[in-house]
Amino acid sequence: MANTAKPVLHGYFRSSCSWRVRIAFALKGMDYDQVNVNLVKDGGQQVTDQYKRLNPMQQVPAVTIDDMTLSQSLAIIQYIEETRPGPRLLPSDPKQRAQVRMICDIIASGIQPLQNLYVIKKIGAEKESWANHFIQRGFEALEPILKQTAGVYCVGEEISMADICLVPQVYNAERFKVDIGQFPTIKRLNQTLLNIEAFKVSHPSCQPDTPAAVQA
Amino acid sequence: MANTAKPVLHGYFRSSCSWRVRIAFALKGMDYDQVNVNLVKDGGQQVTDQYKRLNPMQQVPAVTIDDMTLSQSLAIIQYIEETRPGPRLLPSDPKQRAQVRMICDIIASGIQPLQNLYVIKKIGAEKESWANHFIQRGFEALEPILKQTAGVYCVGEEISMADICLVPQVYNAERFKVDIGQFPTIKRLNQTLLNIEAFKVSHPSCQPDTPAAVQA
Repeated sequence: MANTAKPVLHGYFRSSCSWRVRIAFALKGMDYDQVNVNLVKDGGQQVTDQYKRLNPMQQVPAVTIDDMTLSQSLAIIQYIEETRPGPRLLPSDPKQRAQVRMICDIIASGIQPLQNLYVIKKIGAEKESWANHFIQRGFEALEPILKQTAGVYCVGEEISMADICLVPQVYNAERFKVDIGQFPTIKRLNQTLLNIEAFKVSHPSCQPDTPAAVQA
Repeated sequence: MANTAKPVLHGYFRSSCSWRVRIAFALKGMDYDQVNVNLVKDGGQQVTDQYKRLNPMQQVPAVTIDDMTLSQSLAIIQYIEETRPGPRLLPSDPKQRAQVRMICDIIASGIQPLQNLYVIKKIGAEKESWANHFIQRGFEALEPILKQTAGVYCVGEEISMADICLVPQVYNAERFKVDIGQFPTIKRLNQTLLNIEAFKVSHPSCQPDTPAAVQA
């Protein structure tokens, strides 16, 4: 079913949802090509007719894989999980799988959409405090949940999709000046994960389209 | 692993995410109890300390099942899918599964969060036009995708989680005065699905907490 052509990730270095997919590719040890979609230059390359054919939502990431194009990072990652070998990204236990998905969805539906570029553009001048408010609110909910589910990683002792979602969201939280020190479990998990190779090589500071000024 | 106690759905008749879970229970033929969480009365029962222990995000739904409490409708539905018999809610083909999840996430991360109660409360007076804008934008993206993936249902010829997400989102679109006539595939799918028993019995117009004024 899976063909041998390399997947192509259409993404942007600083997009947290693109980063999620880069982490998944790295954890699975999958080789892929990157096409840069600059979200800010000239009003954003994601609004062109060419890109809208790949993803009508005009967002990154979009991934071309196995002769189809998928958008939505969690759908992409679960497709990789179901079709590629390598370390599993969801636990084998159904209850733990449910906890992983709950944590992913708190981030992917409850926090990230509210600081997405096309949303904060509409907010205008108050976009920094808007994004800060909703990330703060989300982390206040996530912290007690992670305190219950976490071992070394977000859910127990295996890296999962929950970790893949957490680290890019913490990166965004810091951009929007949320004090991570308020959330000891989130802070500890993030520090642990940032030391793992798959999270390092996929980091926004070292992508092909990372501007020199923000390179690590 | 699954115990014999009935699941308990903490929800609200008009919450689109609660409706998703009600549809899934109905499709699976699962009996469950409902606890009403009135999102508007006295500032909202979801902000009480008692409810925050069930779901720190202060949102519905939350489901108590198999001695744990889960929030996030898609995580709940996938847990039901993985642990309960009955018609499957995800196709067997991985590519079709990916399409189903992509459609779910466009709705659950790209559209619904932007018309969620705690978000539009913060928008204030312009909340109607705000919600209308983001649902319109989302449906403009969803229509061409569904045109490619749909058969009788959102993806092919089997009801899936994508259908479970679509119908409550169309209901919200109508509340916020989006003209569904612009989207012939969405309109056709919605009409087909509303004739199916599981979508009828779970409809906001006929729940235990539906006010008399909006009952069907």
